[in-house]
Amino acid sequence: MSKLFVRTLREDPADAEVASHRLLVRAGYIRRQAPGIFAWLPLGLRVRAKVERIVREEMANAGAQEVLFPGLLPREPYEATGRWEEYGDGIFRLKDRKDADYLLAPTHEEVFTLMVKDLYSSYKDLPLTIFQIQDKYRDEARPRAGLLRGREFSMKDAYSFDWTDAGLDESYQAQRDAYERIFTRLGLEYVIVAADAGAMGGSKSEEFLHPTPIGEDTFVRSPGGFTANVEAFTTLVPESIPFGDAPDPVVFDSPNTPTIKTLVELANAEQPRADRPWTAADTLKNVVLALTHLDGTRELVVVGVPGDREVDMKRAEVQFQPAEVEPATEADFDRVAGLVKGYIGPWSPEGPVLGLDSATDIRYLLDPRVVDGTAWITGANEYEKHVFGLIAGRDFTSDGTAEIADVREGDPAPDGSGPVSLDRGTEIGHVFQLGRKYAEALGLQVLDPNGKLVTVTMGSYGIGVTRNLALIAEANADDRGLVWPRAVAPFDVHIVATGKDDAVYAAAEALAAELDAAGVEVLYDDRPKVSPGVKFGDAELLGVPTIVIVGKGLADGTIELWDRKSGERTPVPAADAASRVLAEIRG
Amino acid sequence: MSKLFVRTLREDPADAEVASHRLLVRAGYIRRQAPGIFAWLPLGLRVRAKVERIVREEMANAGAQEVLFPGLLPREPYEATGRWEEYGDGIFRLKDRKDADYLLAPTHEEVFTLMVKDLYSSYKDLPLTIFQIQDKYRDEARPRAGLLRGREFSMKDAYSFDWTDAGLDESYQAQRDAYERIFTRLGLEYVIVAADAGAMGGSKSEEFLHPTPIGEDTFVRSPGGFTANVEAFTTLVPESIPFGDAPDPVVFDSPNTPTIKTLVELANAEQPRADRPWTAADTLKNVVLALTHLDGTRELVVVGVPGDREVDMKRAEVQFQPAEVEPATEADFDRVAGLVKGYIGPWSPEGPVLGLDSATDIRYLLDPRVVDGTAWITGANEYEKHVFGLIAGRDFTSDGTAEIADVREGDPAPDGSGPVSLDRGTEIGHVFQLGRKYAEALGLQVLDPNGKLVTVTMGSYGIGVTRNLALIAEANADDRGLVWPRAVAPFDVHIVATGKDDAVYAAAEALAAELDAAGVEVLYDDRPKVSPGVKFGDAELLGVPTIVIVGKGLADGTIELWDRKSGERTPVPAADAASRVLAEIRG
Repeated sequence: MSKLFVRTLREDPADAEVASHRLLVRAGYIRRQAPGIFAWLPLGLRVRAKVERIVREEMANAGAQEVLFPGLLPREPYEATGRWEEYGDGIFRLKDRKDADYLLAPTHEEVFTLMVKDLYSSYKDLPLTIFQIQDKYRDEARPRAGLLRGREFSMKDAYSFDWTDAGLDESYQAQRDAYERIFTRLGLEYVIVAADAGAMGGSKSEEFLHPTPIGEDTFVRSPGGFTANVEAFTTLVPESIPFGDAPDPVVFDSPNTPTIKTLVELANAEQPRADRPWTAADTLKNVVLALTHLDGTRELVVVGVPGDREVDMKRAEVQFQPAEVEPATEADFDRVAGLVKGYIGPWSPEGPVLGLDSATDIRYLLDPRVVDGTAWITGANEYEKHVFGLIAGRDFTSDGTAEIADVREGDPAPDGSGPVSLDRGTEIGHVFQLGRKYAEALGLQVLDPNGKLVTVTMGSYGIGVTRNLALIAEANADDRGLVWPRAVAPFDVHIVATGKDDAVYAAAEALAAELDAAGVEVLYDDRPKVSPGVKFGDAELLGVPTIVIVGKGLADGTIELWDRKSGERTPVPAADAASRVLAEIRG
Repeated sequence: MSKLFVRTLREDPADAEVASHRLLVRAGYIRRQAPGIFAWLPLGLRVRAKVERIVREEMANAGAQEVLFPGLLPREPYEATGRWEEYGDGIFRLKDRKDADYLLAPTHEEVFTLMVKDLYSSYKDLPLTIFQIQDKYRDEARPRAGLLRGREFSMKDAYSFDWTDAGLDESYQAQRDAYERIFTRLGLEYVIVAADAGAMGGSKSEEFLHPTPIGEDTFVRSPGGFTANVEAFTTLVPESIPFGDAPDPVVFDSPNTPTIKTLVELANAEQPRADRPWTAADTLKNVVLALTHLDGTRELVVVGVPGDREVDMKRAEVQFQPAEVEPATEADFDRVAGLVKGYIGPWSPEGPVLGLDSATDIRYLLDPRVVDGTAWITGANEYEKHVFGLIAGRDFTSDGTAEIADVREGDPAPDGSGPVSLDRGTEIGHVFQLGRKYAEALGLQVLDPNGKLVTVTMGSYGIGVTRNLALIAEANADDRGLVWPRAVAPFDVHIVATGKDDAVYAAAEALAAELDAAGVEVLYDDRPKVSPGVKFGDAELLGVPTIVIVGKGLADGTIELWDRKSGERTPVPAADAASRVLAEIRG
């Protein structure tokens, strides 16, 4: 400790929002260099190396081979797949002295694909899974929570290459299994949820989420085992209802109904229903969204959702990607004809306004709950007028469905496995079936057994090394500091010598040497002028799982084993110290 | 081999200028991603990891602690030391989404200094040496020779911090010793030469050069053990000569003397000397150089060098740094008064033109050989006129000396240790005493034992990991491929099974398993449909030091050990194969 390049802090850093950030800085593991960019001090680097080793071992067990690609890459491959533009402001771009465009790679699908294209040419070369542990860059709008959302971060990214769909399934499963082993070894609780594939494109995608109250993601779970990221949640579609002899829609004056609530009150006053009162869920709220497509064109769409639901913009982003989506502006409204703001509906007394064969050519999408035969209160598309009993499928139609309404506690899981609960989590791993998108864009084909060229199908698999490290710290901490699980602790044992007695330091040093010789990683607090209280405080802050106190008890032949997690201190004979520590460490 | 992500090439890559580049690409170790930017395939990454491990071990032996800084860094620290500008086009700069300036770090003095400032405050914390192995970026004008001059490359950079000069000497020596151990373990021949400190600033600097005909640097050695980079070579200054009764200078017409040679011929015809003829070494060539200073101002200087020497622009760069130097242009000449192009000299019949008390205010510098009393033929600063017998110190003076003349085989070493020879080499390591430059610029001070703040003195120590790897490949190759030294070979042994006999493959596999169990790293060529010739060719190209051939000899109980370096093949009983291989590997 007297030589180790570390300095512990009593005060929390001002910019730290979460425990892992606070403690990793206070305990001298990392230091901020710029927003979302950190330097690693010796203690932090030791933990990072251990996380990386576990990842490497399980990649090897899954048959993946390690490679290493540069962080600085030319524009062209990313241009070929469209991602140079798609990433928008989210990546760092730069030019070299010859004015050629480069990026700091946020992920490496393109260049892995091109490398396999360069080296391989036959189905016999496949399957292949290659990976790297490499520093990635993303120009996050709001880097936050220390290592949890950084702009430079270490990631393990693996890519699989197969020539059949069944092969891809196997490669995907091998990585998925490896991820389960990795998170188990890291001691990180996880839930595997169906996920949206985001900017990656492709068909099948699952996220490993670590449930944590500081999580940025919301996910659902049902009693029957259904799990999904809310962005990937699909609504259980109700049965259609026969139109029967449902009465015709009734238009009514609706001044002073600025909210769904006032509209529902008016409805119950003017047109009470026999069986049950109207509720917000009986109203159809028509939301106008503006999409910006990749080619720069701006399109307005209207989406009808039950009035008791809010629009979840993250779900909307997924629904409309790769277009960007935002609420329509005043300027957008000025450009469209046929919609009466505040009273928008798919129907007016003059006929259909939205949907098939309607007066406008605006796309109209509906929440999946708006099935044929359901009756709605909605805008009549005339100023201060609404309509009751508008029947879906009879009085109005749509151009498709859209999953943009928020997901709620108690919503039925789409697979019928019961009502879902909502939890917060953070992504700790992601497995994707990319399919043939990248191979097609970049021309990766191999000869099949019949000598015919077939396009390769790919998977991509990512684990954020530095993020996982932070989550381990987050999940293993108390009010006194870090509490590392053994698998990733910077040292196996932390020996604290206290007092001023030379014999104490000699005994502590001898114990350190004996353990070191047995292959144990020892941190020895040899600082002669530091008080026991400060040393104990540092030991708790640093979080090595086993602490050995050599102090005044030594005179009676006793030292103390201190379990960092339970806080329990056990006196043991000094002569047994090494064997007791070894037993502790090796279980 | 049937699974390994590798593909050997028969043809040299078109852009490869040197053996290491050709062979590392052909053998499937690396692949180019952009000019000077490479990806590492599994074989290459294995070698790289071994080089890094040796560097790490020797850093630990030298008491240096490992840390890791980001590659992407903000402008401010580099602004504070002036390097943001000094690097010119040589670094990659970029902006983030908030328009803040960043760079891809070419080296990390600033942020290491700031980190120590953040953590430490007392002389008791020192000495400290910390290092990282990290990817560096330089926007080289002409990336070349594969990994030898790349734009992204892995470097070990260490920095030492001391509060006394003696401490710095010790820290410097510890790193210097570690470097000697590292290059010895890597099997890289080296010469330690006095070096110019370049953009680093600072006082003492030595380069470890690996002598190689493809080297970019030239260095000198004397029989008495003097070594220096030519940029750091200083001229042995001759004794001054008493003016005595040397005759007055004589001006003569010199039309049609466009070269030193024609001038010397004219001199010997018109003014023959009694003792020996005039030679080019008797002429004083006055070269006009243009300096661009950091503040953007442009200054012309004239340097007088003996006419038998050329100006070495790399030496001139060192002489005038941090200003940039180039030959003066026509436009420069148009701006100056008092110099007659083609006939420039420090003197004219009207009096001194350059030097002290002269007609111009242009700085005039002289080669150190132009000592007082030496007599020269030089321009008379009038059109078509030169002057004989111009005596230095009597007829003309200077504003200082300049070491910009080229260094030649046979020049005397400055320490009197004899005539130097010139060799080509490449820098493989560099140790600098930075002194207090960075600590002053960034305010790194500690309290000394008297409670007084003192500025810390620093050293900086770099080894190019990827460059060293390439030089090992370069120095250990023959016309059939790579020949790795054991310490860094990607595998310990390469087992080649030949033919179609199942028993051969079974025996080879069993041997591979036995060696693997003994901790030996085995590459097993199991490809059933590949001819023995192709397998042998691949084995030679890949360069694993020990090759084992299991083939038709197995029927008689024999396998072959093949030493890649000597080419010798030794039949050994199959039953002894594992023990023989182990003996071979473990020496």
